[in-house]
Amino acid sequence: MVAVHGARHFACSYLPEFESGPLVPCKLGFAKFSIGNNAVNNLGLCRGGDARLRSSRIIKAMEESAAFLTKDCVSISGKDHQIMSCNGKSSNIVWHKSSVDKFDRQELLQQKGCVIWITGLSGSGKSTLACALSRGLHSRGKLTYILDGDNVRHGLNRDLSFKAEDRAENIRRIGEVAKLFADSGVICIASLISPYRKDRDGCRALLPDGDFIEVFMDVPLQVCEARDPKGLYKLARAGKIKGFTGVDDPYEPPLNCEIVLKQMGDDCPSPCDMAETVISYLEEKGYLQA
Amino acid sequence: MVAVHGARHFACSYLPEFESGPLVPCKLGFAKFSIGNNAVNNLGLCRGGDARLRSSRIIKAMEESAAFLTKDCVSISGKDHQIMSCNGKSSNIVWHKSSVDKFDRQELLQQKGCVIWITGLSGSGKSTLACALSRGLHSRGKLTYILDGDNVRHGLNRDLSFKAEDRAENIRRIGEVAKLFADSGVICIASLISPYRKDRDGCRALLPDGDFIEVFMDVPLQVCEARDPKGLYKLARAGKIKGFTGVDDPYEPPLNCEIVLKQMGDDCPSPCDMAETVISYLEEKGYLQA
Repeated sequence: MVAVHGARHFACSYLPEFESGPLVPCKLGFAKFSIGNNAVNNLGLCRGGDARLRSSRIIKAMEESAAFLTKDCVSISGKDHQIMSCNGKSSNIVWHKSSVDKFDRQELLQQKGCVIWITGLSGSGKSTLACALSRGLHSRGKLTYILDGDNVRHGLNRDLSFKAEDRAENIRRIGEVAKLFADSGVICIASLISPYRKDRDGCRALLPDGDFIEVFMDVPLQVCEARDPKGLYKLARAGKIKGFTGVDDPYEPPLNCEIVLKQMGDDCPSPCDMAETVISYLEEKGYLQA
Repeated sequence: MVAVHGARHFACSYLPEFESGPLVPCKLGFAKFSIGNNAVNNLGLCRGGDARLRSSRIIKAMEESAAFLTKDCVSISGKDHQIMSCNGKSSNIVWHKSSVDKFDRQELLQQKGCVIWITGLSGSGKSTLACALSRGLHSRGKLTYILDGDNVRHGLNRDLSFKAEDRAENIRRIGEVAKLFADSGVICIASLISPYRKDRDGCRALLPDGDFIEVFMDVPLQVCEARDPKGLYKLARAGKIKGFTGVDDPYEPPLNCEIVLKQMGDDCPSPCDMAETVISYLEEKGYLQA
């Protein structure tokens, strides 16, 4: 199983054009595919050599473009710009490439789309950082959007409860939406407790390498509980909320996140200072330019 | 049941500040609430008069800000900037206001966030229009993002099948995501068959008045079937796809959509011409400026 990549000018063009034009490897949105021999034969970029060689060329180009692997499948038609694919639950889906792509949008915005995923206990300051970050970036002329676990529960995820499987689905959907925002060129700030490593890593896997920036609010439970800005720890200790992270449900700290923001004792940086740490990271990694 | 509105500078500020500052009515994201008397009493903007009078002031301000009604409930604390709310399935949710709001993002982008919802039969040219539209708007320096029914099924909606309830859920989720994009300031182009009026109207109801622009691709079934760009009509006629819109499932044309794009006989406008019709509409309604 391998992923397919496309050339940039492939977007909304036809394969005959693709055959003759220069090949600039990039990812085809976030579509995930495997490729059969027929598809390989139909793809202009793989003419010459036997099918096995052609496949290996595609795989190499894909590896170079850091594309993804999944259990989805696809067949690529050489007749037009459409890619037929199927996945577990739906079939007859056509992946439409847009004429304006992520690169174009990033050029317009003079920034690179990415996801800043802020994780930590309730009361650790996730939302405060998200706000400070959006202010700091906006003042630099950058477009951000905050996806907040609670906010999204009022709309997209209003059908989900707080039971284990629904919490996982809540995070999965927010990860998918964050991916769309990053693809749109926006710097998407997701602010969620997201206590399980597995769920966070699942969201990370949706994004191209580097575009998922995990920020861990490393604040001791006692500090969060002493703050208790929403009064939720009190309710959890009184047994009025079940399965509350840190009280009767575990929080799994990240093992390899991009940024750790420690707050302990007297050494408590201001929200603005913390935001600047994240902004410096973005600047250094080139996300604040196209 | 009424919806709550906030003042623009309310975002990320505290109520004591709120009490003294000027009141600029605007919507608080898309939170949907009812307000109890305690909340009304706690809100600085409603001091003076009895509870009934204070409520009516809030309701009036809300009406002026064209806010929404639902069955959600909320209690507003006067102590800080948080709004506790509950809905059918989840509780202990806090609605976080962002420090950078929709108006700020629109100012940055020099456009107004909205949803262009393209509906029509398979083969009616929805995706083609979406592409032409994104090209046309991008060339004017406007930020767009296409949500395509098929694309989203590869990610956010990969757990959904094509059975009736899943199709409705597919459209609901895309409507919710489109709402988030519009809130982010992006001109979101949703391209879906969305055959049922009820589902489309559900998405319309999520957006502020005017921000949901329904575009009907009015192309006769015979024309779509003759084009059959994906070969799906052929499969449906052969009984290999069940419940295919136009073949063995109904399409309910919009009754009061904003734009109808007719294609019949020799009078078939080009994708660019159709895109220009939509762009003129956006221009006229002020969506192409902040």
